[in-house]
Amino acid sequence: MLDLLLARYGLSDESLLCIDTKPSTLKSGQADGIQPRTLEVFKTLGISDEIENEACQMWQFAFWNPSPDKEKIIERTAVMPEVIPPARFGYEATIHQGRIERIMETDLLRYSKRGVLRNTRLVDVVIDENGDAEFPVVVTMNTNGTERTVRTKYLVGADGAHSVVRQSLGLKLEGESLDHIWGVVDLVADTNFPDIRRRCGIHSPAGSVMVIPRERIATGEYLTRLYVHVPEIVSPGDDQLPAKTTESKSEDARQRRTKITLGGILKQAADAMQPYYIRPKDGAIDWWAAYQIGQRVLPEFIVKDSKNAARVFIVGDACHTHSPKAGQGMNVSMMDSYNLAWKLIYQINGLAPTSTPDNPTPLLNTYQTERHEIAQQLIEFDRKFSTMFSGQMGATEGLTQEEFQQAFKLNNGFTSGCGVEYPENILVVRDSNPSLNPVQGTDYLSGILRPGRRLLNIKLLRHADGGQRDLHDGKIQVVIWLIRFRAFQLTNDTDTPSTGRFRILCLTSQDLLDREGVSAKALERMAILIANFPASTIEQIVLHPRLHRFFEWGDIPDCVKQTSEMRFYDGSALVDAYSIYGVDPAHGALAVIRPDGYVGVVAQLGDVKQVEEYLRACIRTIL
Amino acid sequence: MLDLLLARYGLSDESLLCIDTKPSTLKSGQADGIQPRTLEVFKTLGISDEIENEACQMWQFAFWNPSPDKEKIIERTAVMPEVIPPARFGYEATIHQGRIERIMETDLLRYSKRGVLRNTRLVDVVIDENGDAEFPVVVTMNTNGTERTVRTKYLVGADGAHSVVRQSLGLKLEGESLDHIWGVVDLVADTNFPDIRRRCGIHSPAGSVMVIPRERIATGEYLTRLYVHVPEIVSPGDDQLPAKTTESKSEDARQRRTKITLGGILKQAADAMQPYYIRPKDGAIDWWAAYQIGQRVLPEFIVKDSKNAARVFIVGDACHTHSPKAGQGMNVSMMDSYNLAWKLIYQINGLAPTSTPDNPTPLLNTYQTERHEIAQQLIEFDRKFSTMFSGQMGATEGLTQEEFQQAFKLNNGFTSGCGVEYPENILVVRDSNPSLNPVQGTDYLSGILRPGRRLLNIKLLRHADGGQRDLHDGKIQVVIWLIRFRAFQLTNDTDTPSTGRFRILCLTSQDLLDREGVSAKALERMAILIANFPASTIEQIVLHPRLHRFFEWGDIPDCVKQTSEMRFYDGSALVDAYSIYGVDPAHGALAVIRPDGYVGVVAQLGDVKQVEEYLRACIRTIL
Repeated sequence: MLDLLLARYGLSDESLLCIDTKPSTLKSGQADGIQPRTLEVFKTLGISDEIENEACQMWQFAFWNPSPDKEKIIERTAVMPEVIPPARFGYEATIHQGRIERIMETDLLRYSKRGVLRNTRLVDVVIDENGDAEFPVVVTMNTNGTERTVRTKYLVGADGAHSVVRQSLGLKLEGESLDHIWGVVDLVADTNFPDIRRRCGIHSPAGSVMVIPRERIATGEYLTRLYVHVPEIVSPGDDQLPAKTTESKSEDARQRRTKITLGGILKQAADAMQPYYIRPKDGAIDWWAAYQIGQRVLPEFIVKDSKNAARVFIVGDACHTHSPKAGQGMNVSMMDSYNLAWKLIYQINGLAPTSTPDNPTPLLNTYQTERHEIAQQLIEFDRKFSTMFSGQMGATEGLTQEEFQQAFKLNNGFTSGCGVEYPENILVVRDSNPSLNPVQGTDYLSGILRPGRRLLNIKLLRHADGGQRDLHDGKIQVVIWLIRFRAFQLTNDTDTPSTGRFRILCLTSQDLLDREGVSAKALERMAILIANFPASTIEQIVLHPRLHRFFEWGDIPDCVKQTSEMRFYDGSALVDAYSIYGVDPAHGALAVIRPDGYVGVVAQLGDVKQVEEYLRACIRTIL
Repeated sequence: MLDLLLARYGLSDESLLCIDTKPSTLKSGQADGIQPRTLEVFKTLGISDEIENEACQMWQFAFWNPSPDKEKIIERTAVMPEVIPPARFGYEATIHQGRIERIMETDLLRYSKRGVLRNTRLVDVVIDENGDAEFPVVVTMNTNGTERTVRTKYLVGADGAHSVVRQSLGLKLEGESLDHIWGVVDLVADTNFPDIRRRCGIHSPAGSVMVIPRERIATGEYLTRLYVHVPEIVSPGDDQLPAKTTESKSEDARQRRTKITLGGILKQAADAMQPYYIRPKDGAIDWWAAYQIGQRVLPEFIVKDSKNAARVFIVGDACHTHSPKAGQGMNVSMMDSYNLAWKLIYQINGLAPTSTPDNPTPLLNTYQTERHEIAQQLIEFDRKFSTMFSGQMGATEGLTQEEFQQAFKLNNGFTSGCGVEYPENILVVRDSNPSLNPVQGTDYLSGILRPGRRLLNIKLLRHADGGQRDLHDGKIQVVIWLIRFRAFQLTNDTDTPSTGRFRILCLTSQDLLDREGVSAKALERMAILIANFPASTIEQIVLHPRLHRFFEWGDIPDCVKQTSEMRFYDGSALVDAYSIYGVDPAHGALAVIRPDGYVGVVAQLGDVKQVEEYLRACIRTIL
């Protein structure tokens, strides 16, 4: 993901190297869930089509619990939407991780000749500023037995739970290991269980099973993934024992894990799904594993050099490990890279904001601020969810089914990826004075503009052509960033949009047709502001509310057509954009959207100055 | 298109050869409009993504006419939706024909190693049954100077207006040639005309222009196509002169056409668009041409051998020529192939219905019945539309603008491709007894089921997983047809769906939960019926209306889950499918959908016999 983004933003094979120990993309097993937010990001990158068309779409989550009717054993107690907040995609997708890798690799090869360098093992990483202070990260790697050492400005460790980057630099994951042991199996199910095509949480007196429907395979049949809690192997009351050291606990669990067999997992699933039967159709097992993973997180995602400049970054499973059941791993990990990539590019291209001696890389440092917070939330969510799910419902101990459903609902903002909120930092500015806030409402999950949250996609009617457009799509189109801003040279060799741009969302007010109105003035000042920034770093999106009369291009400031002809929309024709975003059409508002689609700041329509201040803190303009 | 379809239906490179005179796909110019119906077909083939994402979407058509205010000269008199009937895509797409060719070629190469054999010119075609009566079509071709002769069972001439196939077999297009001469130019427009991003019909006192917005090009700018009527070159009153022979008229026009220059076209456009200015931005002209094309059609699209068996087929421009302005050419031509391909495959695989001595290829003959009718409609529409459009609006002679708008609206069913209706034949059976018709209503364009029209796509909630699905999507998935039915061997080596299948749409009634009800009986009889046909030729889609109580799989006949688990939908949760299709939920209905998505027959829910009769006339079951 990171390699793909950096290649698309314009880093050539000479500047960018991605290595992988594995000889090829993954063949089976591992992660398979794609959150709606991840799909949104894929869509803006133009790589979502195959997933949209061919993945299994999970629209609903069914809750099965012990039935008061003893003969029924279990019964469906509720069906909820899998994705509760509004989102561009109303489902979670499941598709084999190998296909995701292949989709990305195919796209990568449009931008990079080399692609991923496979069969290459990372041996060691050190930071050594003596040799070459500009390229202080020294990396030793081994390709098919041949060792070589390279120097780089930046290194990103996306090398998984057993990260060599992390270990080489002496970083340690922190956190408690929980002892729930789970079996996971991908199979073609022969079953009379009625919800086998729905995601299900099944709690029965005989144990817990999670059903994850998956995509169709070449035979035309549908895969099902089962996560099975294997309780009989956990010594009863284990949680109540005096705390062991993490080491001994994990050794314990490892031993217990080796006792788990495919037959044991299948039997446990069959027991928990009684009175229904379930078995592999014609013995078809695609993949299985047993795992027990603690919830752990790295305290620092960034390693700095002696001048306090960020040099090495840890992303994904290398900095947060947790259980796979909520389908978070691949998503949160890719979003780490999505958060980091544009910041690295700004830094490398000399577009990052002015540094101070004690903080030479303020933009890069926001990666820690933003993603460490999300990793913490992930770990906490996973701990709760795993415990909840391993527990038996409806029994006297543990959660009630209502509590479980409620927790599912509450956590859906997080699990869908749509409710992620970054804390305040230079990229996320929240005005402390509420009277200056042009946005009303707090239902951020439903779209109310909120710095730190992603901009909700909405359908808009475009003025120029009457086309019905998705707001997120303004970003697709051309994606190679042609700016070369090194050595502080401004070049403007293209007008094409890019995913690396900041965007100013200008919600004009009802006075748009008044030449002397607040809207007209703001638009004119905005056009000047954009021209004062490095070319192609900022683009403008303009919305108008319902106006009292029909109008033409000639009735509004010329700059709208000049700067935003194909990004000027009617905000009331298809949906009520102003109400969704929490903006009063009488007053309008401004918002800056970061290159990764998150709201950076909101300001009153007349307050172009605040927008400018925000942008000057994000983008270097002083040479 | 034909080659792609045949390859996907399973014809291997040993059995299938597609030749093209050109050395590569097209680089610029020519056709660019994709109708909503064509997009629907592309979607079912899984090749619509690039067009959906990157084509220009035309959502609206603006009418510009002489203004009563002499200073304004012209004014916008109306804006209408480009696509009026309900359709899966609410726009017409414009994208360069070369990209369509490339999209198809990329997909073709997944099924065929050879792909299209380029640089290969067809020299001659004869039907010669003496040498090999089973392969009577003798084709001489020349690849880069090397000539060779091959024999084939069937030949399709998709070789354009100057078709060698047509000429070799002595076939002649019939019809009158109209003399309107048009210039066409693709440019990046520098203009203050407010509707440059909308499709426009402009009628000014100085002439007529049609504006076709097009896709964005690599520079980030938008192309515009202008069709410009070049009236000054047409001798006034030409239409009133005594009819010349077709030959001399066309010679006349050819001479006049050579006088047309790029400068002349641009000046004519600029004059007609006064008081607005329009000129090529930085002189950027992508392509231009002048053309005058008559409306002509071939009386017979099929050439038969001495035993009256269909052997050679003519499709596309080779059998119907007309003007390009309504964006019909590429679409109608591809739909010719879409109509023909599955029939050829049924014939080749021995699945075509039983023949009689005087009509050995009844299924293939329906190609003539169905597509000749559409070609006639196309020619008539184009004649009307061209005349209408060349005339000046609002003047005393010619059509009023209201008449033009009305004509646009009326013809939209045809121009969108969504209103096409095939005449009755073995594949299109309309019951003559209205009291037996389970479908009420005649608004076929809005979805009322009508044999001969395409099934309207609707959104449905799937029972098995609560997924929100497009009904048309049942067809995507796996597309290689694995049936080999030659020599009347039945093999059932796959359960995967295929675009070559007939589908029975079973709209069950409100008695579905009654074990003895009409619905249950019909479903059970249907399951037996399907099993009696060659494997994989028929699949079933089941809808249910709003029912009086919640139900589970166990409450309905087992055969629904067995035959249609992932094709069983709630017809009332997302849209009112029954009312859209004109079916009374109290009585239900059956419909057979042909492999190309057109309704073949509708029958009462209890009348499985009629469905069976229809299918037996379409698919061979007697060995």
